[in-house]
Amino acid sequence: MPSFFEIEKTCPITGARAGKIHTEHGIIETPIFMPVATKGSVRGVDWRTISELQAQIVLANTYHLTIRPGEASIERAGGLQEWSKWTGPFLTDSGGFQVFSFARRGQAKIDDQGVSFKDDLEGKIHFIGPNESMNIQKRLGADIVMAFDECPAGNADRKTVETAVRRTRDWAEKCTNFPLQKHQNLFLIVQGGKFEDLREKSLEEITKLDAKGYALGGVSVGESREEVEKVISNMTKKLPINKPRYIMGIGMPRDLIVGVLSGADMFDCVLPTRIARHGGYFSEGLRFKSVSQKDFSDDHDNPLVIGCQCPTCKTFTRAYLKHLFLRKEITVYYYLAVHNLFRLLNLTFDMRKAIFNDCFPQFLKKNLYLLS
Amino acid sequence: MPSFFEIEKTCPITGARAGKIHTEHGIIETPIFMPVATKGSVRGVDWRTISELQAQIVLANTYHLTIRPGEASIERAGGLQEWSKWTGPFLTDSGGFQVFSFARRGQAKIDDQGVSFKDDLEGKIHFIGPNESMNIQKRLGADIVMAFDECPAGNADRKTVETAVRRTRDWAEKCTNFPLQKHQNLFLIVQGGKFEDLREKSLEEITKLDAKGYALGGVSVGESREEVEKVISNMTKKLPINKPRYIMGIGMPRDLIVGVLSGADMFDCVLPTRIARHGGYFSEGLRFKSVSQKDFSDDHDNPLVIGCQCPTCKTFTRAYLKHLFLRKEITVYYYLAVHNLFRLLNLTFDMRKAIFNDCFPQFLKKNLYLLS
Repeated sequence: MPSFFEIEKTCPITGARAGKIHTEHGIIETPIFMPVATKGSVRGVDWRTISELQAQIVLANTYHLTIRPGEASIERAGGLQEWSKWTGPFLTDSGGFQVFSFARRGQAKIDDQGVSFKDDLEGKIHFIGPNESMNIQKRLGADIVMAFDECPAGNADRKTVETAVRRTRDWAEKCTNFPLQKHQNLFLIVQGGKFEDLREKSLEEITKLDAKGYALGGVSVGESREEVEKVISNMTKKLPINKPRYIMGIGMPRDLIVGVLSGADMFDCVLPTRIARHGGYFSEGLRFKSVSQKDFSDDHDNPLVIGCQCPTCKTFTRAYLKHLFLRKEITVYYYLAVHNLFRLLNLTFDMRKAIFNDCFPQFLKKNLYLLS
Repeated sequence: MPSFFEIEKTCPITGARAGKIHTEHGIIETPIFMPVATKGSVRGVDWRTISELQAQIVLANTYHLTIRPGEASIERAGGLQEWSKWTGPFLTDSGGFQVFSFARRGQAKIDDQGVSFKDDLEGKIHFIGPNESMNIQKRLGADIVMAFDECPAGNADRKTVETAVRRTRDWAEKCTNFPLQKHQNLFLIVQGGKFEDLREKSLEEITKLDAKGYALGGVSVGESREEVEKVISNMTKKLPINKPRYIMGIGMPRDLIVGVLSGADMFDCVLPTRIARHGGYFSEGLRFKSVSQKDFSDDHDNPLVIGCQCPTCKTFTRAYLKHLFLRKEITVYYYLAVHNLFRLLNLTFDMRKAIFNDCFPQFLKKNLYLLS
């Protein structure tokens, strides 16, 4: 039985690392981008395509699944894989992110025990605390399970973040004591917002507790670009070196590069599928642009991104994709999402290769334009 | 160079036939169901999947394409195949069906020259007559081109249908005189509504004109089931025996069986993709049912249709698909459309096999339940 996480190679100059995470449903080669299947399906992309894009793990949202169809139903199906037929590894978040966004809109009550909230579908009152979150995630059966943390908004004041750091620690302890299924692996989450000392405090408290991996939460939830990158580059390297490091909720190519450069292994974001539904695609520079731009109307010669090897760019032209988008043909959401997922996944694959080939600094240099 | 159409086998008892249509973009084995790609994409299903489902020809709508992106743009791309990257044969309708439905809503003016109408996107005034329709279709470049006909509603009075029959004949003559691209093949359309004598008259007039194939139009446009089937079974067999026979706009499994039994070769309908977007799927009996039915909520054991060999039924359960549909996850429109297209396509494949194996009457007997 191999250990849960092994580092295969570390870039001696930057500390970027390539590794392997062993789960019951397959091996995850890191660094890796994880597509988001909020309600049990990556929005607009069928599972066969997700598999062909070489996604190695997907994320599902505990909040959405507990509301519908409910963990009891998924448990009866035999867990997330048996239910959804995505046979690779799953990660579930704790539900905290969604319920705290209710709290920010005044639709939830938080105290030291957890959160009471009205769901947005049936208006029922629910309570989720650390034990409830663990129990739901246990029944969903994901390979990687996230601790229940408090995630305040990016612009929250110091006092709010202090409270969140304290609760996150207390709840993390409860989560570590919760008996999950044998194949499940708990990750703990560091909070602290944009306050450096609170980040340090949270990191110290959280990493004292034993877990299979550690994550930075509350990143890119409304802070400035500078604040996001400061947290990523200062904090990632302080997470335990021998455990997977996961930066939650980031999915701009630049963020992935800064993350790997800082020693992170895992990333997730709804961005590639969400922007697809609004006609957005990652361009040459891996920023995103709109497929409805003016000069695409009659461009029957070029793919979205010249030289891109994704199935969409290898097949379709700008003019055709723009037409489908303007005419609201839903296949275009698929074609654009495939392109966007391919770009992010291959960015992580390329970084992994560069680390293995002892040329990660060269990779950075070559891709500096992505960072500008 | 093989002839455009060859009959490979005819059922000696029923007259049902299996044949081959040779086009520049591939061979079409008949009888065949043609998926509809209204605006240049089968709604919700990517081209790779359409190809894997063994679709052999798809239909695109002249009206929608002339409004956006316009035939000039598609012509510059090199025609429908180069533009959309569906490399197999295309058939375009004449645009008549859509503009006459405007007329029925009082948004168009018809006279003996053609139809003036306001498009529903930009509100511009357009005129389409037989020459305009032929010219647009020439520029779109489809392999099979439909004559510009007048298609009155299923409940139209005798006088209206009489006028439509006359115009359809006059316009058909103009269409046959229009020089299309070398690889294009013109089909003429028989009208006459539910009036037997007008159907006979239209058929006699239309089949006097030379064309590569003949179609029954104005079927299933608001008449009763009995009227639809009477027209199919009475008129199909009177179309020239040595040319492809196409019944336009029908896509219920029962209609395809009655059509083939009556000697028809080609069918099209938006039904399989349209009902998918409303959660509909062809059930065991090939009627359609809703995926949101009550007893699917916790059915983690069975596919939509037990024994179905389509990619959706081979992978997913009723409970999962119902969940995706209730949560408006757009992948479910793909999964259901794949099932529905598979069922109709395979129904035509099965009938073709039965005709070849001299057992079409047995096929009918075995599938009588589809006809009840």
